[in-house]
Amino acid sequence: MKIKNIPNDLVDGEFIKSLDNNVYDMPALWFENNVIKLIDQRYLPNKFEIFEANDYTEVASAIRDMVIRGAPAIGAMAAYGIAQAMNQHKDLERVSKTLLQTRPTAFDLFFAVDYMKRLIKAGKVPNEAARNYVNEIVERCKKIGEFGGELITSGNKILTHCNAGALATVDHGTALAPMRVAKNQGKDIFVYVDETRPRLQGAKLTAWELYNEDINHALIVDNAAGFYFSRGEIDLVIVGADRIAKNGDAANKIGTYEKAVLAFENNVPFYVAAPASTFDSGIEHGSQIPIEERAVEEVLIINDAPITSTGISARNPAFDVTPNKYISGFITELGVFKPEEIKDLLEKSKKGLEDF
Amino acid sequence: MKIKNIPNDLVDGEFIKSLDNNVYDMPALWFENNVIKLIDQRYLPNKFEIFEANDYTEVASAIRDMVIRGAPAIGAMAAYGIAQAMNQHKDLERVSKTLLQTRPTAFDLFFAVDYMKRLIKAGKVPNEAARNYVNEIVERCKKIGEFGGELITSGNKILTHCNAGALATVDHGTALAPMRVAKNQGKDIFVYVDETRPRLQGAKLTAWELYNEDINHALIVDNAAGFYFSRGEIDLVIVGADRIAKNGDAANKIGTYEKAVLAFENNVPFYVAAPASTFDSGIEHGSQIPIEERAVEEVLIINDAPITSTGISARNPAFDVTPNKYISGFITELGVFKPEEIKDLLEKSKKGLEDF
Repeated sequence: MKIKNIPNDLVDGEFIKSLDNNVYDMPALWFENNVIKLIDQRYLPNKFEIFEANDYTEVASAIRDMVIRGAPAIGAMAAYGIAQAMNQHKDLERVSKTLLQTRPTAFDLFFAVDYMKRLIKAGKVPNEAARNYVNEIVERCKKIGEFGGELITSGNKILTHCNAGALATVDHGTALAPMRVAKNQGKDIFVYVDETRPRLQGAKLTAWELYNEDINHALIVDNAAGFYFSRGEIDLVIVGADRIAKNGDAANKIGTYEKAVLAFENNVPFYVAAPASTFDSGIEHGSQIPIEERAVEEVLIINDAPITSTGISARNPAFDVTPNKYISGFITELGVFKPEEIKDLLEKSKKGLEDF
Repeated sequence: MKIKNIPNDLVDGEFIKSLDNNVYDMPALWFENNVIKLIDQRYLPNKFEIFEANDYTEVASAIRDMVIRGAPAIGAMAAYGIAQAMNQHKDLERVSKTLLQTRPTAFDLFFAVDYMKRLIKAGKVPNEAARNYVNEIVERCKKIGEFGGELITSGNKILTHCNAGALATVDHGTALAPMRVAKNQGKDIFVYVDETRPRLQGAKLTAWELYNEDINHALIVDNAAGFYFSRGEIDLVIVGADRIAKNGDAANKIGTYEKAVLAFENNVPFYVAAPASTFDSGIEHGSQIPIEERAVEEVLIINDAPITSTGISARNPAFDVTPNKYISGFITELGVFKPEEIKDLLEKSKKGLEDF
């Protein structure tokens, strides 16, 4: 991903390439000398810091505390974490169990841990397995960008929710990958970015990615998308996903369901962009997806100051499930599939999933 | 309205009554020795301060800067502001013009200025006209509470958006009045409070009013209501309004339209509570309601700190319009009316509006 204005002391290393005009190209996380390094997403965009995870307990807390987030990126972090732990002669079962307990909703976490265990047990060198996994995710996001880019026409105004960009997927992104491709094809696009309370990933991460890519955008409060839908000023919605059931019900960041209903009611196409690693072939319906409820302090406190008084109760579900009827299609590395075509997708991706 | 824990130096004066257990009863604004005094809504709930407006320019800036907000309370402030200006021998036309330019959407502002001009020109003492206006608003909200309370069954979980409480209406509230009545009738109710970005009136004002009334509640981010709708955990929605067209299209705080669509899609009744002074008999459709767009800093900055980096663009529409098809009924001082019955309501309230 392109990043402008990285502090000078952070611009060397094989994973950071210099482009023109003080713009750099780098991934959201990488694996170097058995240390997992990642852009610390808690402090973006005002502070650019590299977080280093030195063992699996640090990997687990980085996932739990959202130093890294986004289903594909969490999967990549877990793959590197297992390789690192194997190099440190840790117990595979114990490490896997610890990582799986960090966050319950993102399916890529379960997919990546399963993949690593399977390959390591089959005798694959852990570092190679992890690098394969991450390279594959990046390639798949690139393909999502190509297929999704075809859905975007010059002049389109696109709504996105939360961050399903390069930061959430190592590189390119899922929902943002088609926008990057459309922009690079010279299409004139405009993106409405939901700020995405409570953690403000839209404001802090997505808006920052679009700014770095010079893509026209407007940050809006989560309440405002309906206003633009009702005025016919949104042509297309593209979001990511944390887990997708076999029937096409999709879990994603809290608030996604609201935008899907609004898109449906206003006849605006609503697409979910995700690699096959986010599809959970083990569950039939969205109601089977576990929904994480996080600490109420995420609601009650913003920028270190309370937004209300003591004595106020709160609730904080972190995800919701969008039923398949609201989803126009899934943008995947194998093409665009309708909810009723997911069984075909899972069949087609099976070979890939085995080799992956 | 009931308020707990008012600082000691603010608990005297004829408008603040002491109830049991350090709980006080007071209105959101009052008129004393030609000074308009009001609870400063910019600092609630963490700081309880009384703002004093000493002339019409201070009244105008208090409305513009949202020291006071909520359509009925803005109307009351304007009525007192005109009485104050008349006592100071100011020019009625000039004062009226200044007040009407403060905020474009709330109809009560236009209604109150028109009412005051009409009565003053007919020879009424300005202070009497203003006190009549405000007493009438308070009485109407009380009736809204009684009619709306009948719609609430014990066990109901109710969603509300923004603040349509006593702070927005001098006393009782519009959307919150039925909840106060239901609670006082011994009904077991629970209220989901949307935090209501960008200004967080739900978090700062509504949650605080419910806390003061000992009404069970949960503050949620604006993204989370859909989650509770989809799980069947919301039985009823009640919101206020800033302006209602003759066909029943209703403008209210940004995000209201989103909740109305979600309620409709989930077969949950959606009520708008408002006195007749919020119905604009001069316009046929919601598309004719002017929508205020406020400074983008309301989106970009929370608690005095930026939520994103420089270089990020934003948009900030302050209201949206909910089409009549999504509205189950209007809770007014004359009963509950369906959108298609608004012409009856306007007819029935005509006599009241003339005398008012």
